[in-house]
Amino acid sequence: MAESSKPILYSYFRSSCSWRVRIALALKNIDYETVAINLTKDGGQQFSGEFQALNPMKQVPALKIDGITIGQSLAIIEYLEETRPTPRLLPWDPKKRAQVRMVSDLIASGIQPLQEPCHGEALDTRERGLGVHPHLPCLCWSHRLPDCRGLWGSLRRWPEKMVTSLPTRGPDGRKELAGSRNLSVLKQVGQENQLTWAQQAITSGFNALEQILQSTAGRYCVGDEVSMADLCLAPQVANADRFKVDLTPYPTISRINKSLLALEAFHVSHPCRQPDTPPELRA
Amino acid sequence: MAESSKPILYSYFRSSCSWRVRIALALKNIDYETVAINLTKDGGQQFSGEFQALNPMKQVPALKIDGITIGQSLAIIEYLEETRPTPRLLPWDPKKRAQVRMVSDLIASGIQPLQEPCHGEALDTRERGLGVHPHLPCLCWSHRLPDCRGLWGSLRRWPEKMVTSLPTRGPDGRKELAGSRNLSVLKQVGQENQLTWAQQAITSGFNALEQILQSTAGRYCVGDEVSMADLCLAPQVANADRFKVDLTPYPTISRINKSLLALEAFHVSHPCRQPDTPPELRA
Repeated sequence: MAESSKPILYSYFRSSCSWRVRIALALKNIDYETVAINLTKDGGQQFSGEFQALNPMKQVPALKIDGITIGQSLAIIEYLEETRPTPRLLPWDPKKRAQVRMVSDLIASGIQPLQEPCHGEALDTRERGLGVHPHLPCLCWSHRLPDCRGLWGSLRRWPEKMVTSLPTRGPDGRKELAGSRNLSVLKQVGQENQLTWAQQAITSGFNALEQILQSTAGRYCVGDEVSMADLCLAPQVANADRFKVDLTPYPTISRINKSLLALEAFHVSHPCRQPDTPPELRA
Repeated sequence: MAESSKPILYSYFRSSCSWRVRIALALKNIDYETVAINLTKDGGQQFSGEFQALNPMKQVPALKIDGITIGQSLAIIEYLEETRPTPRLLPWDPKKRAQVRMVSDLIASGIQPLQEPCHGEALDTRERGLGVHPHLPCLCWSHRLPDCRGLWGSLRRWPEKMVTSLPTRGPDGRKELAGSRNLSVLKQVGQENQLTWAQQAITSGFNALEQILQSTAGRYCVGDEVSMADLCLAPQVANADRFKVDLTPYPTISRINKSLLALEAFHVSHPCRQPDTPPELRA
């Protein structure tokens, strides 16, 4: 990775957390380079030694900027806000800022992890168009861990009758998971069940979010200016779409999302328009 | 709930997210009242209509202050920082602030959800001294959702052979889960498996955290001043202790935690010294 004066965003086109940061960079008109970290290739490029040295969390996004590397999407956005304050992504009023951060945290910690996949092999099945990730629902959460694959080890000690056909594992369960094309977990849990799980998770979060937004929103999540909360909202609604969540009960969420998608910064940063977007998914 | 000029913290003694906020309030010497929300009583008091009206996320902590109610622990701490800046919990240097927020988010979104229980009935078993929560590991995450109990519904559609003895549920699964004393999930998954699961989750997160702290820490997580990151660290290490995680591989985490626990603000805010701490757990 050559040195560069431009910020470098380590990103994956489909990562909703990466999308949040891409929107911030676009809104603030910050020129940057993208280094694509393919979460499905080579057993997950985020697990490479080179990337781990850069970001011990082994996650995207990470932003190399001003001589430091920052992980965690909200921490990145807050840094951009403090060092490149125009246009602002946090209102001037501390109470409104609290609302922005509350909505952001609700999405980033309370909803998003539920339906985002582990960054392991099995993600490939989504790329192949199955539409939902093939992990056990509980493993969906683990994408936020530096290396969720280790968690599979514990499953080996689950009672046999609970987990009857996890992928075969040798002494090194991690390696085998990473390299395997075994889709037995998907078959076992069933696409419909996973979809139901994800839908319930998102619905539960959106119930709270809709209620909160009804009291905080103007044109956007908090008042009439785009804020960090909106950078979390649009990618989350995209996740909801992917999991076929009925958005009818969420008129405020839907209305705001529609307004956001009409903005240039949300358009250019969209997963279907990234350097690493596969041709068949480009729009 | 009577009006009060004092801030009101809706808290549960054992909630590590509540503890984060209690530390902030103590450090900043902010006088406040505690309203205990017992996450195990009455099927979880956070699900009451009264509390839902206050905090649609149905979670603790929530802080009523300056005429608003804020949910999400980090959003609360950031608000306190902006309105009561002394002593500061974020360094003045934006790069250091980014490090503080990165570490905070890593713990708050990437580690903590893994081992904190759903706020439903089954938590009771921990109160009774079993030491680990009796939910399926995947459900541990769901405490961050406004009402994680809804997720149980989806389990009903899991293949029978995967989940053979979840609590019996009627047409309204939520009500029955909340009221049941059925420990079959605990029996099914097994205490040892849950412990292993939690340990792997924490270990995976701590591997990244230790590496990050080795480059950011002074006496505390980032430099020599207590910051928001430290408010996340100590409660997380307490969780690690509870789940019997071997801290030997984490000398930096351990050293910082020891320094933190010696501070008055961390002492008075500790779970074993709260108004709602049961007598047998007081210290």
